[in-house]
Amino acid sequence: MRTTVGLRADGSALRRTPLRRRDLRPDDLAVRVDHCGVCHTDLHAVSGHDGAAGDLLVPGHEFTGVVTETGPAVTRFSPGDPVAVGNIVDSCGECPMCRAGQENFCHEFPTLTYGGTDRHDGSPTLGAFSREYVVRDRFAHPLPPGLDPAAAAPLLCAGITVWEPLRALGVGPGTRVAVAGLGGLGHLAVKMAVALGAGTSVISRTPGKAEDARRLGADELVVSTDPAQMAEARDRFDIVIDTISAPHDLGPYLRLVAMDGTLSHLGHLGPVTVETMDLLVGRKRLSSAGSGGVPATAAMLAFCADKGIAADIEVLPSARANEVLDRLRGNDVRYRFVLDLSDLD
Amino acid sequence: MRTTVGLRADGSALRRTPLRRRDLRPDDLAVRVDHCGVCHTDLHAVSGHDGAAGDLLVPGHEFTGVVTETGPAVTRFSPGDPVAVGNIVDSCGECPMCRAGQENFCHEFPTLTYGGTDRHDGSPTLGAFSREYVVRDRFAHPLPPGLDPAAAAPLLCAGITVWEPLRALGVGPGTRVAVAGLGGLGHLAVKMAVALGAGTSVISRTPGKAEDARRLGADELVVSTDPAQMAEARDRFDIVIDTISAPHDLGPYLRLVAMDGTLSHLGHLGPVTVETMDLLVGRKRLSSAGSGGVPATAAMLAFCADKGIAADIEVLPSARANEVLDRLRGNDVRYRFVLDLSDLD
Repeated sequence: MRTTVGLRADGSALRRTPLRRRDLRPDDLAVRVDHCGVCHTDLHAVSGHDGAAGDLLVPGHEFTGVVTETGPAVTRFSPGDPVAVGNIVDSCGECPMCRAGQENFCHEFPTLTYGGTDRHDGSPTLGAFSREYVVRDRFAHPLPPGLDPAAAAPLLCAGITVWEPLRALGVGPGTRVAVAGLGGLGHLAVKMAVALGAGTSVISRTPGKAEDARRLGADELVVSTDPAQMAEARDRFDIVIDTISAPHDLGPYLRLVAMDGTLSHLGHLGPVTVETMDLLVGRKRLSSAGSGGVPATAAMLAFCADKGIAADIEVLPSARANEVLDRLRGNDVRYRFVLDLSDLD
Repeated sequence: MRTTVGLRADGSALRRTPLRRRDLRPDDLAVRVDHCGVCHTDLHAVSGHDGAAGDLLVPGHEFTGVVTETGPAVTRFSPGDPVAVGNIVDSCGECPMCRAGQENFCHEFPTLTYGGTDRHDGSPTLGAFSREYVVRDRFAHPLPPGLDPAAAAPLLCAGITVWEPLRALGVGPGTRVAVAGLGGLGHLAVKMAVALGAGTSVISRTPGKAEDARRLGADELVVSTDPAQMAEARDRFDIVIDTISAPHDLGPYLRLVAMDGTLSHLGHLGPVTVETMDLLVGRKRLSSAGSGGVPATAAMLAFCADKGIAADIEVLPSARANEVLDRLRGNDVRYRFVLDLSDLD
């Protein structure tokens, strides 16, 4: 086994801890993790985790770093290569979804970067709030030149999560897109929709984000708590990308969708309830999204490198990870925290 | 005022009653109602209606008959013409939805054939369980030659309700369609999907309907209470048309939908709850449908006349309307009751 250092959840806080990683299999890479984004999912995972022995939780599932070693069957990477890894690190590879490059929908469920179970040795997967990660080559992506490694890290979860519906729904020139919620996911959705050529609006309860919305390329900010503005925006958008991270009534957002348009709901999991009439009137559609497959992730990274898109980030050393979690609980970040893990050496 | 005879709701039953109809406006037709289909909506409307004076309810919103008189501005119809009318008899005519021929989505809400309020004189609308109906010409359709007037009546509500999603979702040769629920709506959905060239399956809890499913043109019947059959059908259909008329869990039907496919839910109104993961995995979409606009209704009638499609019906004289309601409560009909209203003369 290899040894490294990471951050484990312990009573809603993160504590530095020694960790083990598996020895490299033929198709494995060892990656020195330099930067890892902090996702709301990490906050949920840490909150309420009691840190009991035998129940080791290490968060972190959107990271960039440098290859340090490769297994003998690896041909796409060499030591020294910059790489990026997201929230899926393996899948069955044989079901129709895997064969279609949609490993995120693997019929046997994909192996998650942390909190999952390795398909070969049955060990729990431990995340990238850690100085080293060992990953199957197929699930690592070359980091394209020109992308800042820190700002690119959030592309691997937040980025692909918004890219998937934007592409699946055919967003391009002429499409009218609204992004509900201007946070980690939302600000990337705005940048990507604008770069795809769509007319883009932001829906937010925070009027103070109007300047940011315009800086990101949006045409306007519609204040969701202002009934007059919401009424004026009714039926106006072909696609509404709902990135709001807490459970909420989808009705007001469905009513912004134009005839035959789609509300893509991707801010959180769990059951959602809609009024049939909110779908029926205007033949609207509800969809959801989360993560993406290997080919889509590669396409997203290439697009972002081409367009100069990365996350707006605040980088803090991993020693300040608990401060990051506290501020994330209060949504106090514009728009994504990234941990610099070099202080774990 | 004109006088006629109809059936009013009175303590969950229907009773013969004299009725008044408005004098013809310039763009009105008077129609001698010959046949009117009986929809689940009618059953719901009658059940629990106490028949109090001043609260007159006459059901019936899918009917065919013959024009007996026309207002001076009517040019499309003459006395003696066979006509068909559905569940919408007026709309604002000026909102974007009306201008787009989607009067069913009128921003001011369309005037329903019964239980609505006339936009001009404020009177309550009374339905077509009646020997005469007076309707604005725009909302009457010429009944195409070759369609049996009794079997065509249900096309005007059940038919257009399933036609709308089939057409909006682009069903045609190569599309894999499943119709969940083989009743008034479902059997017409099967006939139309087959005639549009789609591979069509029926999902039903009643194995005994397999022969009917094949007779209607379906390739197979999948028994919804058989876990093995439902597992085998997983991810197999581009479009699932869910016509089940009672509230139910949408999860098992979403799991039949293929990648990027759609579940169209149209059997009943009210809130629906879905698990986000049932939408997310496979990028599936939920939509709903109900009724249709004037152009779509005309297109549906032309298609049905061309393909020889009408409802499978059981015709009973209006004097037996209460027997019809009782049997409809037990779903004892294959597949639509039609009242013959000539006995009201």
